[in-house]
Amino acid sequence: MSHIPLGPGGEFDAVRAIIAQLGASAHGVGDDAGAFTVPPGEVGFVSTDVAVEDVHFRRAWFTAEEIGYRSAAAALSDLAAMAATPRAVVIALTLPERWRADAPAIAAGIAGAAQSVGAPVVGGDLSDGPTLAIAITVIGSTRAPLTRGGAKVGQGIWVTGRLGGPAVALAAHQGGSAVPPRAQKRFARPTPRIREAFWLAAHGATACIDISDGLSGDLGHIAAASSVRLVVQRDGLPRVEGASAEQAASGGEEYELAVTAPQSLDAAAFTREFNVPLTCIGEVRAGEAGVEWHSAGASVAVPQAFDHFDHAPQ
Amino acid sequence: MSHIPLGPGGEFDAVRAIIAQLGASAHGVGDDAGAFTVPPGEVGFVSTDVAVEDVHFRRAWFTAEEIGYRSAAAALSDLAAMAATPRAVVIALTLPERWRADAPAIAAGIAGAAQSVGAPVVGGDLSDGPTLAIAITVIGSTRAPLTRGGAKVGQGIWVTGRLGGPAVALAAHQGGSAVPPRAQKRFARPTPRIREAFWLAAHGATACIDISDGLSGDLGHIAAASSVRLVVQRDGLPRVEGASAEQAASGGEEYELAVTAPQSLDAAAFTREFNVPLTCIGEVRAGEAGVEWHSAGASVAVPQAFDHFDHAPQ
Repeated sequence: MSHIPLGPGGEFDAVRAIIAQLGASAHGVGDDAGAFTVPPGEVGFVSTDVAVEDVHFRRAWFTAEEIGYRSAAAALSDLAAMAATPRAVVIALTLPERWRADAPAIAAGIAGAAQSVGAPVVGGDLSDGPTLAIAITVIGSTRAPLTRGGAKVGQGIWVTGRLGGPAVALAAHQGGSAVPPRAQKRFARPTPRIREAFWLAAHGATACIDISDGLSGDLGHIAAASSVRLVVQRDGLPRVEGASAEQAASGGEEYELAVTAPQSLDAAAFTREFNVPLTCIGEVRAGEAGVEWHSAGASVAVPQAFDHFDHAPQ
Repeated sequence: MSHIPLGPGGEFDAVRAIIAQLGASAHGVGDDAGAFTVPPGEVGFVSTDVAVEDVHFRRAWFTAEEIGYRSAAAALSDLAAMAATPRAVVIALTLPERWRADAPAIAAGIAGAAQSVGAPVVGGDLSDGPTLAIAITVIGSTRAPLTRGGAKVGQGIWVTGRLGGPAVALAAHQGGSAVPPRAQKRFARPTPRIREAFWLAAHGATACIDISDGLSGDLGHIAAASSVRLVVQRDGLPRVEGASAEQAASGGEEYELAVTAPQSLDAAAFTREFNVPLTCIGEVRAGEAGVEWHSAGASVAVPQAFDHFDHAPQ
């Protein structure tokens, strides 16, 4: 790790403490902008994600390291949704006095998520403020991005992993009951499905989204962008132990991928490679753009997805 | 302007209102990540900058459009400091209920700054929260970046524009006195010196920083990164009318450029091209890394630069 020396001042002391935590993932921090490379022939992609205390999470739910980790994982998940290779991470941290001592752990969590997908942390900004807010911006690149608009009639709808964990953990935290460890692990340490996305793209996936606001709502984005009807079997959703079908269908912050791909996809091969389930949950059909949920052969209503402005977890 | 349709929900209604304001500068908003291009042979650079209400500014000082504009200008100024061509802008907006109606004007301001340097807004994230916070991330690229570490002994120290305007305006706002219009203009609508940076790089500048925390502190970064002694003539600083030498030397949020470049630089040619002064304010010397201020041939103390954590303008 080599850095351009920073000048004096309280802000920079805090920055230094954070940089010390970034370890091998920090490159070029200290100049006005951090460097990254987009290989010739690839298009760059950038995405930003904000996590605000008491809007997106409560302090009691996570360690400081987890708060950093999941903030970065959420942003990196947007690159997975495009099947883009992560190239760089930048951090904009609004840090109230009461969080100052936790900054190194938050930074370590961010760096851990970045390292897990091979992305260096190349810069950041640090500000005082009344509320902890972590804005993570990720840069990736790819020759052939997946988008929300590529779904084709006749494809299957596939989802990685098991859903409902974050919803189960959230309900337990809010209800004051014991939090099942598996659900908490999914809540606290989501995995950005970068390598899984490459596999899916290589095996015929044409549309993809990461499940950040809930499968139900996020499939709505694919349906709208692709002008297709998505028919989903609610009871076939892969679920974390203890999760209801509703929690699997509507819970947010999963950071699993929903893709449209051939119905003949070799899910067993995917699972052998990543030790993660891949489940066909429905079919892409022609018709009015939208998502139709079925259970036991009949249409069923599924609750609307998580929406920060309507249902902030407070 | 063409966009992938967004799904339903209160958050997305707000996003739509903002996108409508972005006009021609919006591209690809609505997918998981926004696209940009780095030309072959160029290195990408990314920088992020946060503006938090009541930490970096007060609502009474600016219009909502200005708050957006100057947030983006501050981030773009980091690309100017590298002499990088802006390629993309992303917005992470934490928007309290009381600011909701101002979101389109804030977005219009951000878009205005982005358009002024030819950068498209390619994405963003919108969150509820207790305080307005605007995190702007900018992506640029260049074949030959300027850095803080390139100062050479014998060069001149040069600064663009006239300094002290933001400090004069800030003092007037805080003191409740009439705010001089020229100072307020510099405070509310700083210009990211992108094209000026290209000119300076093409004419021999080897180190550069944008003056965001005050000339005094920012020159300290060049001195530290370049391991040189910067000797600066305090009374020779170019000043906005009404600004003291101290305000010019220490005031933050200037977003002018300080560069080291040959003492023979043709400042008149620069001014003819950009209608902006370019002033030699000192010299790069060998010696202990640091900044030495002179006045009438004697060393003088210059107040430490603005530091958010020590001197937040509250």
